[in-house]
Amino acid sequence: MPNLDFTKEYFTMKESDAIEYAKTVLNFFDEDAVLTCKEIGDGNLNYVFRVVDEKNNKSVIIKQAGPVARISDDFKLSPDRNRIESEILKLQYSLASGLVPQVYKYDSVMNCCTMEDLSDHVILRTALLNHNKFPMLADHITTYMVNTLLLTTDVVMGHKEKKELVKSFINPELCEITEDLVYTEPFFNCERNDIFEPTKPLAEELLWKDNKFLLETAKLKFEFMSNAQSLIHGDLHSGSIFVKEDSTKVIDPEFAFYGPAGYDVGNVVAHFIFAMVNAEATMEEGAEKENYLAWVKESIKNTIDMFKDKFFKLWSEKATERVAKYEGFDEYYLNNILRDTAAVAGLELCRRILGIAHVKDVTTIEDTEKRASAEKFCLVYGKELVMNREAMLDGKSYLDLIEKCKR
Amino acid sequence: MPNLDFTKEYFTMKESDAIEYAKTVLNFFDEDAVLTCKEIGDGNLNYVFRVVDEKNNKSVIIKQAGPVARISDDFKLSPDRNRIESEILKLQYSLASGLVPQVYKYDSVMNCCTMEDLSDHVILRTALLNHNKFPMLADHITTYMVNTLLLTTDVVMGHKEKKELVKSFINPELCEITEDLVYTEPFFNCERNDIFEPTKPLAEELLWKDNKFLLETAKLKFEFMSNAQSLIHGDLHSGSIFVKEDSTKVIDPEFAFYGPAGYDVGNVVAHFIFAMVNAEATMEEGAEKENYLAWVKESIKNTIDMFKDKFFKLWSEKATERVAKYEGFDEYYLNNILRDTAAVAGLELCRRILGIAHVKDVTTIEDTEKRASAEKFCLVYGKELVMNREAMLDGKSYLDLIEKCKR
Repeated sequence: MPNLDFTKEYFTMKESDAIEYAKTVLNFFDEDAVLTCKEIGDGNLNYVFRVVDEKNNKSVIIKQAGPVARISDDFKLSPDRNRIESEILKLQYSLASGLVPQVYKYDSVMNCCTMEDLSDHVILRTALLNHNKFPMLADHITTYMVNTLLLTTDVVMGHKEKKELVKSFINPELCEITEDLVYTEPFFNCERNDIFEPTKPLAEELLWKDNKFLLETAKLKFEFMSNAQSLIHGDLHSGSIFVKEDSTKVIDPEFAFYGPAGYDVGNVVAHFIFAMVNAEATMEEGAEKENYLAWVKESIKNTIDMFKDKFFKLWSEKATERVAKYEGFDEYYLNNILRDTAAVAGLELCRRILGIAHVKDVTTIEDTEKRASAEKFCLVYGKELVMNREAMLDGKSYLDLIEKCKR
Repeated sequence: MPNLDFTKEYFTMKESDAIEYAKTVLNFFDEDAVLTCKEIGDGNLNYVFRVVDEKNNKSVIIKQAGPVARISDDFKLSPDRNRIESEILKLQYSLASGLVPQVYKYDSVMNCCTMEDLSDHVILRTALLNHNKFPMLADHITTYMVNTLLLTTDVVMGHKEKKELVKSFINPELCEITEDLVYTEPFFNCERNDIFEPTKPLAEELLWKDNKFLLETAKLKFEFMSNAQSLIHGDLHSGSIFVKEDSTKVIDPEFAFYGPAGYDVGNVVAHFIFAMVNAEATMEEGAEKENYLAWVKESIKNTIDMFKDKFFKLWSEKATERVAKYEGFDEYYLNNILRDTAAVAGLELCRRILGIAHVKDVTTIEDTEKRASAEKFCLVYGKELVMNREAMLDGKSYLDLIEKCKR
């Protein structure tokens, strides 16, 4: 094999190239390493190479941005998202160490990022489809969110420093995907939507014909486009979270930019709801199902309540902005985040049912009637979250609304 | 005189240097031009050279950013604001031609901008201190605001293009000045405040001790720091507006960045109020005073009402964003701007009385009792605007509130 030059010009790597890259560019493996590599990407936008030295029990992940996003030919993405991702991971590692993978190297020529191998973890969505419980998950994910979200706001960060981060992480292409797929297309009869046949009449009656609901989605879209509040992950669903029993790692922050903090929290809540409807439709009745559902609901409740508690605690320790200490401002600020959380959870529930990008939690429900029923719940619950977002100020209100929407 | 080199390194120009610059760098004057120059800056941040060829009746303005802002030693500003200003002027010229000066050249080495000479105009503040009326002013300034503000929002502009503008006009240093001087310092006993002795007890009682008011100022500060809505001027007081009878030109957009649209509208309203209190305190009773005050109040009313009318009209012609066309969204969006308008007008009224930067409209009122009374009105009216901003949805409400605050 001729020597590859990784310093001149970008090309998309194959597995053998990734091994060569690890040998010649990274200063990570031992001299006597015997390297093997597998491309393990299941996302839409990147190639993910796992390079392993079994001899010395060391491994890394090399994640390379493809020249064109794989999600669809409609979305052309520049590989700058890989720079954004690497820098965000480093920043988040400093804010929430242990909860994101460590980055070893970012390579601006090859548009790839070499980072900690998390192969002892599993993707949360896969684990949830297997109905596995993770008692520490809500605790971990709320620590991650509070630290990455609050510590990057004007409440804590110097305002000039924050503005430099806003500038550095302007992310037009990835934001456009969210603006289209989350905030726009699911709410009219858009060609790119992908709707389960039995759900179509409900989408039309419940959502598309309700002008009051549509107006709220427009307000929320503009909030997403204009509110430079926190450096958010921007895509925090259960496919972006690695778990094992005692560890949680958030990956794939390529959608990151300065946006509304509640966007991340709302995504976490929505994907717990998907886990819930999956379990309800696919698990056999019995104690295991009850236990699992109890854990999912407890996780939803804890996601909100632990977020609140940790948010106030970190605020009291870290707030630097003088006016943020005015009486009542912390509560006002948090309530806005909780309002956004509910709304985003609601939109996410709707868009994963109606839009182009579905979730396996729902699509793997084989029984047509059960799937239709699960989808109906997601749309009804989602709409309620959007319309009543002002009232969703604690974890209990999410559980109460579940009961209300089942009746 | 040795030949000056304007291409290598920045230096602050003297009048003779500006002539040399005009001769050797600009391709503007005729060959037989006889140039004279005067530095006419009265602002705090820049040197303004007027270079004239009386022989051929041509002239230009060369505006150079000083290496350090003159406003105070506390504020160190990079000359990048001059790039921002030149680019903004060009952009605004394309959006609202005739209402901003034409830019001939921006020079990134000398940090200077060569532009249309507006010496046949006068600074609006000066004209208002002379109690001159400009019947077209509200019409012109609302056209300027609607065009520059609405056309740079996500309602009209492509969202990726808008994000590039957001990035290009991140303006940390100038925004910090506003954050400190408008939103923070006037609302506590800050050393840098400069308060007329008789006004001190009122500042304390009316504002500093009112936690509900303080909470609103904090909300508004965060709105200013986070809401990337429109490419705003950022300093649209009557010292940034040139007028003659049939012409209005907005200058000095060096504070420009993507912020809340209402910030500009609120500034215009506040400085009409200053003109009003000046006239009330300094003009002799009689028809002239009544006519002048009637014009000022009419201008306040028209600023709001014409802004609204033109805003809806331009929206219906230019909106491109699909969800912005949902029923009720235009009204929701405009009402948010009007709410911000009232709040910013209120804060501006307070901060020009209490903070470091005063307005001549008030400081030139020689009679102590009359000045104290004018200042009291500004604080009382300003606070009302902040606290009741939700209700300030038309021009009449501003005039009604004037009457209420006088009682």
